[in-house]
Formats: sequence, C-alpha cells, structure tokens
Amino acid sequence: MAQDIGVIGVGMIGQEHIRRLDGGPGGSRVVAVADADAERAAAVAGGLPAAKALPTGEELIASDAVDAVVVTSWGPTHEQYVLACLAAGRPVFCEKPLATTQEAARRIVDAEVAAGRRLVQVGFNRRYDPAHRALKAAVDGGAIGAPLLVHCAHRNASVPPHYTRDMSIADTAIHEIDELRWLLGQEIVAVQVLAPRRSSRGGELQDPLLVLFETADGVLVDVEVSVNIHYGYEIRCEVSGETGTVQLADPAPVHIRREGAVAGLVPADWRERFALSYDIELREWLDTLAGARLPLGPSAWDGYAAQVVSDAALQSLHSGGRVSIELPPRPGLYATPTAW
Amino acid sequence: MAQDIGVIGVGMIGQEHIRRLDGGPGGSRVVAVADADAERAAAVAGGLPAAKALPTGEELIASDAVDAVVVTSWGPTHEQYVLACLAAGRPVFCEKPLATTQEAARRIVDAEVAAGRRLVQVGFNRRYDPAHRALKAAVDGGAIGAPLLVHCAHRNASVPPHYTRDMSIADTAIHEIDELRWLLGQEIVAVQVLAPRRSSRGGELQDPLLVLFETADGVLVDVEVSVNIHYGYEIRCEVSGETGTVQLADPAPVHIRREGAVAGLVPADWRERFALSYDIELREWLDTLAGARLPLGPSAWDGYAAQVVSDAALQSLHSGGRVSIELPPRPGLYATPTAW
Amino acid sequence: MAQDIGVIGVGMIGQEHIRRLDGGPGGSRVVAVADADAERAAAVAGGLPAAKALPTGEELIASDAVDAVVVTSWGPTHEQYVLACLAAGRPVFCEKPLATTQEAARRIVDAEVAAGRRLVQVGFNRRYDPAHRALKAAVDGGAIGAPLLVHCAHRNASVPPHYTRDMSIADTAIHEIDELRWLLGQEIVAVQVLAPRRSSRGGELQDPLLVLFETADGVLVDVEVSVNIHYGYEIRCEVSGETGTVQLADPAPVHIRREGAVAGLVPADWRERFALSYDIELREWLDTLAGARLPLGPSAWDGYAAQVVSDAALQSLHSGGRVSIELPPRPGLYATPTAW
Amino acid sequence: MAQDIGVIGVGMIGQEHIRRLDGGPGGSRVVAVADADAERAAAVAGGLPAAKALPTGEELIASDAVDAVVVTSWGPTHEQYVLACLAAGRPVFCEKPLATTQEAARRIVDAEVAAGRRLVQVGFNRRYDPAHRALKAAVDGGAIGAPLLVHCAHRNASVPPHYTRDMSIADTAIHEIDELRWLLGQEIVAVQVLAPRRSSRGGELQDPLLVLFETADGVLVDVEVSVNIHYGYEIRCEVSGETGTVQLADPAPVHIRREGAVAGLVPADWRERFALSYDIELREWLDTLAGARLPLGPSAWDGYAAQVVSDAALQSLHSGGRVSIELPPRPGLYATPTAW
Repeated sequence: MAQDIGVIGVGMIGQEHIRRLDGGPGGSRVVAVADADAERAAAVAGGLPAAKALPTGEELIASDAVDAVVVTSWGPTHEQYVLACLAAGRPVFCEKPLATTQEAARRIVDAEVAAGRRLVQVGFNRRYDPAHRALKAAVDGGAIGAPLLVHCAHRNASVPPHYTRDMSIADTAIHEIDELRWLLGQEIVAVQVLAPRRSSRGGELQDPLLVLFETADGVLVDVEVSVNIHYGYEIRCEVSGETGTVQLADPAPVHIRREGAVAGLVPADWRERFALSYDIELREWLDTLAGARLPLGPSAWDGYAAQVVSDAALQSLHSGGRVSIELPPRPGLYATPTAW
Repeated sequence: MAQDIGVIGVGMIGQEHIRRLDGGPGGSRVVAVADADAERAAAVAGGLPAAKALPTGEELIASDAVDAVVVTSWGPTHEQYVLACLAAGRPVFCEKPLATTQEAARRIVDAEVAAGRRLVQVGFNRRYDPAHRALKAAVDGGAIGAPLLVHCAHRNASVPPHYTRDMSIADTAIHEIDELRWLLGQEIVAVQVLAPRRSSRGGELQDPLLVLFETADGVLVDVEVSVNIHYGYEIRCEVSGETGTVQLADPAPVHIRREGAVAGLVPADWRERFALSYDIELREWLDTLAGARLPLGPSAWDGYAAQVVSDAALQSLHSGGRVSIELPPRPGLYATPTAW
Repeated sequence: MAQDIGVIGVGMIGQEHIRRLDGGPGGSRVVAVADADAERAAAVAGGLPAAKALPTGEELIASDAVDAVVVTSWGPTHEQYVLACLAAGRPVFCEKPLATTQEAARRIVDAEVAAGRRLVQVGFNRRYDPAHRALKAAVDGGAIGAPLLVHCAHRNASVPPHYTRDMSIADTAIHEIDELRWLLGQEIVAVQVLAPRRSSRGGELQDPLLVLFETADGVLVDVEVSVNIHYGYEIRCEVSGETGTVQLADPAPVHIRREGAVAGLVPADWRERFALSYDIELREWLDTLAGARLPLGPSAWDGYAAQVVSDAALQSLHSGGRVSIELPPRPGLYATPTAW
Repeated sequence: MAQDIGVIGVGMIGQEHIRRLDGGPGGSRVVAVADADAERAAAVAGGLPAAKALPTGEELIASDAVDAVVVTSWGPTHEQYVLACLAAGRPVFCEKPLATTQEAARRIVDAEVAAGRRLVQVGFNRRYDPAHRALKAAVDGGAIGAPLLVHCAHRNASVPPHYTRDMSIADTAIHEIDELRWLLGQEIVAVQVLAPRRSSRGGELQDPLLVLFETADGVLVDVEVSVNIHYGYEIRCEVSGETGTVQLADPAPVHIRREGAVAGLVPADWRERFALSYDIELREWLDTLAGARLPLGPSAWDGYAAQVVSDAALQSLHSGGRVSIELPPRPGLYATPTAW
C-alpha cells in the first residue's frame, strides 16, 4: 500500500531522504514538508509533484494527508516532533539522534510504551548496509563461535572547523554504539575513552580517540575514531570469536594496477560509502508501514540506549576513567527478538 | 512521472521484474500482464494491487492503460512483441536476447529506424552492475592507457540437463559480448571458439570453452566459459592497457577466518550476484521514461550486434576456425555517444 | 669469514637453529654443543660433521674452538651463559627472553656496558620478517604521517595444557613488546591488560586478553592476544597515522576457489609463519659477526626493556589497573640509531 | 658435504649466483671462476676468499679443485660448457636457456643419456618460488579437480631498446613454458601466438602477445606477455579445474591506505619478485649434490622440451597459425616422477 509521507526538516539529509521517498519504493509520495526556514520548505515542496509546504512540523503531523512522518530537522527539535507523532498515532522515522539528551530520549520511550505500540524508528543506517548484515549473519550463524573481542575503526577524511571533541562521540561513535548493540545482541555496560597523541591535522581537536566498550556478556570492543585521517572514509570491523573471526572486506569494486601499485579506491565520505544502506533503510521502513513482516528497525529504545552509552562515553572523555552504565529494564514493548 | 507498465511473460524472470516495477521507483505500477499460460497470468495479476490479466501480449500492447511494456516471454516470441510495441509507439524493455536470430533482430532495428525514435531497450544487465561501471570508468578515465587485452571468466556452478553446448555461447557468453562492446566502445570483428579438455562434471557437454574476440581497434579478448564449475557463480574481468590494468574485485562483503583459511563467500548464482544490477537497470529505465537525462540503455542495435557476434561464435564452435564479422553500418539513430 | 659456533641447549629450537647455522650462510659450522641432557648433546653432536659435545655451557664458552655462542637453553639459565660470554668476550645470540627477570636482564646490560662493546643479540625474530620490515619501511618513509594508533593481533590456534595466563604476556605478547619498540622507535611508558569474556576452548585459562600500550610519544596500541582461536596462527598489525595507515597483508601465497568460497590458507603455527624470518635473523647475525655493516640486531638493552614492559603488563594483569613504566636512561652503548 | 663450485661467466647473474654459492648453504665455496673477459674474472676472483680465475671454462671444468660447475655465460656458449661437464662427469647447473637451439639442447640430452646419469640442472627458477609451489600443491592435491584451463600473465614494466619480438617468446614466455610443463605434469603439444593491438610504449615492438598452449591432456592455456606495461613486474597464474580454481595471490607484504586508495606495492622487476626463488633453487641444488633426497630440479630434458616449444611458438609468431609439436619419446633417464 502506497504511503503518503510528510518530512520535517528539509536540509541536506532531508532532501536526500525525499529523493528516496517520493515516487520511491512502494509507490510512496512526499505530500507535505515543513522547515524552520519557510522559504526552503516552499522551494522543496515546489520541486515535488504532490507536496505542500506546511508552516510547522506540528501542523504537518496533524494533517490528515500524512500517513507517516520523517524527522530530519535539527537534533534539538527531534523530541518535540517525535512526541507529537506518538500523540497523533503517526509512524515516524527519526534521523539519529533520537534526541540530544538521554532524558529526552527516555521521555519518548515512556510515551511510546504508554501508547502501547511501536511507532518510532531511528535512523541508524549501519544495520541496513549489506556488508554489516553479512557480518552479523556470520556471527549469528556460528561461523566463529561466541564473540569475545571486536575491533572497529571509524575514519573520516576530514571534519569541518566547528567539529568538536564531543562530536567524535555523540555524532561519530554513536554509529558504532548502535552497531555493536545490534551486532552482538547485548547492551553495553561500561565504556572508557582513551586519547592518544593528537594528530597535527586537526589543530586543537583531540583526534583520534580510542573508545573501549564492554558488553553485558563481557565482549570487549575497541573503536578507533579518526576524523582527520585524510586518505578517505572507511569503516572497519572485525569480530574475534572462540574459533575464528569475521571482518568487513574492503568495499572497492575494482582493483587498478598502475604506477607501481595494485590499488582499490576508498570512498571519499559516508554518502558514497553508505548510499545503498539508506536506500534499503527507507525501502524497508516503507515496506514495514505497508505491512511487510520484516525485522523491525532500530526502536526508540535503541535510540535511548545509544544515548545513554554516548553520554557515558562523554563522561569518560571528560574524566578519563572507565564509566559503568546501568540501563533501566527494557520495557516489554521492545522485548521481541525483532527489536534487534 | 509515474509509469503504468504491462508485462508480457510472467515466468520466473518476469515475476522478479514485476517485484521491481510495481510500486517501484518513480511510483510505477504494473497494470497489465499477459502470458501464454492464462492461469499463471491470472494468478500473477491477482497478487498485484492494480493489474489485470489480458489474453494476449498484442492486446496488452494495444491497451490504453499501458504506458510502457516489459517483454519477459519465451525468447522466440520477443520479435513479435517488440515489433508490435514499435508499431504502437510503446517504449519497451525486452529481456535478452532481443531476438533468437540476427535476421529477426535486424527487422527490429529496421522498424525502429523507420519509426525514427528509440523505443527499445534490451536487458543486458551487466552495464548496470556498480563493479562493471567502475571498471568502465577506470578504462574511460585513462587509468590504464589504451586497452590492449582483456581476460574474462564467466562461471556457473552448474547448468540444468537440457543445457547445450550452443547455449554456452547464445545464453551465457552473450553477456560478455554485450559487455565488451560497451566496455571498449567498439564493435567485435572476429571470434574463435576453442574447446579444451572436457569437464567430467558436464557429461557429454563440451564444457568449458575459451572464446577469443577481436575488436575493431585490435583489442584481443579471451573469455573462459565454465558452466559446471561447482564452486559457485563468478564473473571476472581484467583489462590490460598500455600502462596498467583494471579488474573486478572479489565481491565478498566479509572475510571469515575459520578452519585454517581466510575466506570470502562466492555467490551461488547470477540472481545473488546481480540482484542490485537488475534493480538499477529497471529504475534507470523508469527514470528515462519519466524524462531523466540518463545515458541510454542497451539499444536494439546493441541487441542486433550481440546476436551477430553470437551467431559467428556458434559458427566457430561448429567449424573450429576463426570467423570474421562484418556488421552493416550503424544507423544514425544509434550514433550518439549515449548509445554505449 | 666463516664462523665456528657453539650452541648451548639443543632442544627443539636449538636443533632448528643448528640446521640454519651448520654449513649455513657464510660457511659457518657448529663446532660444539652442550645441553643439560648429556645424551641429547652427544646425539646432536654425532649428527653434525664437525661438532663435539661438551659437558657444560661454561666449558663451551671457554673453548678456543668457538668463535661465537648461541644460547637456546631453558630460559632461567640464559643469564649465566650470557654473562659468561660477556666475561669471555664471546659474541652471543640468546633466544628470547634474554632473562626471566628484569633484574637479571639488567645485570647483563650492566656487564655489557662495563665491557664497553656490543656482544649480545636477542632472538626477537619479528624484526627479520620481510612483511614486518615492509611495515616499518612504510612508517619510517612517511607514507602515513606520524603514527598515532596501532592495532595488533597475536593469535595461536591452541596452546598446550601447561600454558598459563602469565605466559600470554611473558611468552606471547613479549613479541609485540619488542616489535612495537622497534617499529615506532620509542619506549613504552605504560601498559594495561584487560580481560574480556573467556573463551570456552581454553578451560580455566583467561583467554583472550586485550593489552594496551602507550609509548613515549603518546602512540596508543591495542593488542589482541588469543591463544586458543582454533582457526590457525596469525599475526596482524595496522598502524594508523596522521594521513593514512599501513597493515600487514594476508600472507597466503595462493587463493583457492572451491566449495562456495575464495580462500587463502592460514599458517598452522609460528614455525610455518616465521621460518623465513629465522633464516634471515641468523644469516644476518653471522654476516654481522663476519664484519658486514648491517643494522645491529636486538640488543641486551632491547631484551631488558622488553622484560621491564612485560613485568609491568603482568602487574596490570594481576591488579587490573594501568601501570606506568619508567626505564632508567639508556646507556650510551645502545644510543646509536642502529640499535633500532 | 660442502661443495667447491666453479662458475663460468661472471656477469650480473653470475655474480648474483656467486653471492648465493660462496660461503652459502651447505658450506659451499666458489673456488674457480672463468669469463670471456679475463679482467672481470680476475676482479671477481679477487673479491672471493677462496677463488682463482682460470683462463677458460674448459680448464675450470677440468680442474680437480672443482666439485660442480655453474654456467652463467652468454647463451650461445652454454652447449659447449655443459657438454664438457658431461664429458668430465661434473654436475652442472646451467642458467636458462640450456642451449639456444633445440638441436644443441638435444645433443646435451643425448650426451647425458649416453653417460647414463643425471648431471645437468637447468635454471628455471619458477619451480622454486614458494607461491608457485603452493599453486602446484593445490592442483596436485586435488583441491580443484582436474585442470582444464590456465590463464597466465607475464608482465615487465619495460624492456631495453635491443629487445625484440622474438625475445618475448625465447627469453620471456620460456618461463611459462617450463612452468606449465611442471605445473601440469604434461608436455605441450601445440602453440599459437596472437598479436593484439600494439602498445604505443614499445615503439615498433609487437607488444603485447597472447600465447595459447595446448597440453597432451587437452588443457588450454592462454598467456599474456606484456613487456612494456609500465606499472611494474608481475607474474599471474590461475588454473581452472573441474570443481574450482587456484591462483597466485598478490605478493605485496603490506597494504597502505593513503591518498584515496588501499594499495599494495608491485615489484619493480624480476630480481625483486624472485630473489627468494633463486636462493632456494641454489640451496636445493647444493643439497642435492650433498646427497639430500629432494625432488630433482629441471633436467636437460626439460631444457630441451622448453626449447622445442619455444621454437614452435616463434614459428607461430612468424606465420600466424597454430603449430603442432611432436617431441621424441622421453628417454628413460628422465622418466622418474621426480623429473617434474
């Protein structure tokens, strides 16, 4: 069944998602947009065959024309829009982060639990990357025995001048936080952030970082976060288990022999590396809305849990020590295996 | 603009394409189906929200409800349906082969030239595989200098009992024929098929084959065609140029270390290997119908030229010698660079 | 100039080295052997063209027939033999560890400094592995900018029943300790050992471990030590620098496609993986004895420093916390760049 | 038992082998050298601890001081020295080619057969490369079933101005000729040389070539010979069998991530790529002389057979057609399995 979608926040990522949603899989259409910048909303709506610009996100959420909502506005506004969707009974896809504080995320979880049904999906796109899915399939299939250690690297060629040390955790490592919870099917119970020698490429920025996570079952994870590594954008992960390991392969589609080397090209940025994962993420969300029995996507609980871990990591980054994490019990609404 | 599509032939590949077309990119719908097996047509139509089963392909083509046609019927019927589409002025996507004889393919070319506009696209999906596109981009971008030699392998784990020696050319190597013409931007001017020792796995079937192609510019290509190689499905290609080479990388998304080896999984068959290329192929076809200025897909001329080369290869397979190929001049309708 | 070598300790590793030394590069011969097991000494001598069995290591060291000594006896005896060599002015190649306590290693350093010339080489064979040399060459050549982070894995398929948790550090990770000092050209200033979930394959053994090292310049290193990982023996290392990374490639010489996978074989154990490094190590030692101006091999200082770091790692393993390391100043005897 | 070696021809390759032989494995020494250039012979002898320069190769062969002879002189002189060694009963290692005509090679075979024992080894070093040995081990071990097709590439970055088209066969592809006979354990029964578009980098030189070989069992082989490919030196080989394939892996010891690519370095030339194979080749030859029961190295028959195939390939290169090859029966002296 085709879906009529409203999009709140039509900046870069919003416009990218609109491209995927309008006339996209399942015959969905974007029928309404809203943005703090009314001119931008009007311009984007004008470029779409069936969309109106509405003055506010709240009016969009209330509109009868809208079957489901995508929230791609500025992070601090996520809470209000997601809560409004829950109040209106609208399915909502909210880009990460679900909220900018764990308290705000918790309020969303509580509201959804009170409503009694799952309406919120958070935009953790790693779970839709075919390579990450193959990684999880190998782990879940028992190819390597029980996982014991994980090594990850999250590398950006460069970051803009306004990028801060805290963003290495809250905006960057947040992806690994969700990925690890999903990949291992466990909560993270402790975190420690270590700061090695600083790269001269990042000015005063503390870059890179090494983030250590411990899971409920005792799996130990180390994540290199490098945000100025110049050579390109790369995501790496190897899981070491009792009898073997599985790791992401280099994604280069061809190997070129020239000038004394055999080389595969590295993506320039996350858009290039993960374009397909966004396609799949939104297609599966639309399919789920249309009634397909797919594994549920990242939930409000996942968004909340990630926020709690991210906050703990920030605390460790500031204090230097290991920080324990205690999540409240997971509500029954999120207890099904599909929650992962 | 959303497209209403009619599909003629709803066997396996037809149903796969319907899955991509109905409620697919651009808001397209499948509104009509036809099949030699009327019950199957009815069943498939019954499973779609907006489709009717029509008694014949001709009636489907004539229907005002249909914006464009997909032909996925039995090969020998392709000619009649494509010619009917041309007569009706309907855009048509015809699965390969365009026709089962070069004479039939030529009749289609002539009809399209007479009609004076490009309506036909042939389903050579390799051109839509991201890895093959990266291969062509490297060649076209000058990374390896002028191409001189190409080495390909086309390997199937196994083939059904009815598979014949001629099918190694007409059904299997036909993909390399189109790929090489597209990749190198040149016609093939000679072909020779060599038969090595026969695999004991194929019974009486002459398998594998080594097919040599020469292009207009003198590029020499050798293609291993192995259709019973057991280990899996794999497509390989390396282009050797004046200053380097470029080749397809292994597509395995993860590497697993277990039992004494580091291994990447090989796809079981072409469906697994090329699923994404079919998605892109049909999405771009729909986008082109909707007016997007994309490079044109494989044309009737491409279908005809591939058939001529395939026929020459069959002649070589039967006679053992090198066979020269002379194509008639390419009509102006197909002269634009987008034709590749 | 050919060298006449005496070997103290003719167990497995001793006999392997004899095979490399007798009639080996530079025309060297093994002319004397000694072993706590006199029968074994006699048997080994009997199998060599020019060797005598001597009753004790001390007599071997004192023998005028011996140009240089190789110590491959039981670890706790290393100190006495190396000190005797220093007293006698004999060049000595001592298998790792130089001594089993840092105090013993320090006594050797002091004796060599007092003697005023470099006579001792320690058997850290990683420095002679062509892949590790290529790794260091890339780092030293500036290919990746200043190193900031290092990720290593040291994996054994299995260990014998008598293997203890402490041996994961003192016998296994000791190789990384020396490798990192050599690779980065810096001392290690702190260490912390973390214990993840225990592999069920190792019984009561705490396996794997994650060892964190910090160097004088602030490079942060994490080392996975897995000694029961079943799939094979593997050594991995990636250095992340300011502008890129360099890592050891898989050493498999061929890739086999069969049974649904593309696979490279993994070595079964360290003998298979590092055979060539031992060849080069002893050949270069003999060449150095013969006067060749090669970079000096691992020194008594290197053996001492590794022991100090290993002791600190054991302390962390037992206590759980981060342990700082303060080495005394490096004596001038070891100050030349060739010391690395 | 240590061997005293005489070396005839002390140009570049002669001097490289002397470095491996003098004071090399097994305690061998170079005790005599001879060269057409007497001054060069004297200079080389002067740099060795135990060598005399002798006026002629014949005198060297006759000298009682010499246990075995290495012939690294100019190709056209090989026949006379090898025949003299056979007459004198001296083991001889002759660099490839065994002789410059098949008639000359045949005279050597006949002389050795008449002498009734194997004294001649030919310097086909590929058989000693660990990667090529792993390739053969996989084929012989049945990992891929019976071999059916082989694809090789032999690439040089550049060749000197005096290099001719015929040398692409007689000096370059000769390595593949021996390798294929050894790898497959069969004689080559036909050859055809095809010339694609010429690289503009080689001036008037016909480069590259594609050489097709057929073996007695019907295995079909294609070899790309590119001698001006600029990017580096590379040897590739993939054997396709009934159930899988095996191929040489890239030999790069490390992978470097920088400037938008993941890259492995390619060797600059054959010296860099095959240094280890020469070490092993001469060490095993010395070990065989000393009585070790190793597989015998490439024989005079191998040298002769390679020459016959090379001549046939040259005939095809000049005539353009397929050339059949009929070897005379292999003499019983070369019948043992160790001959491969």
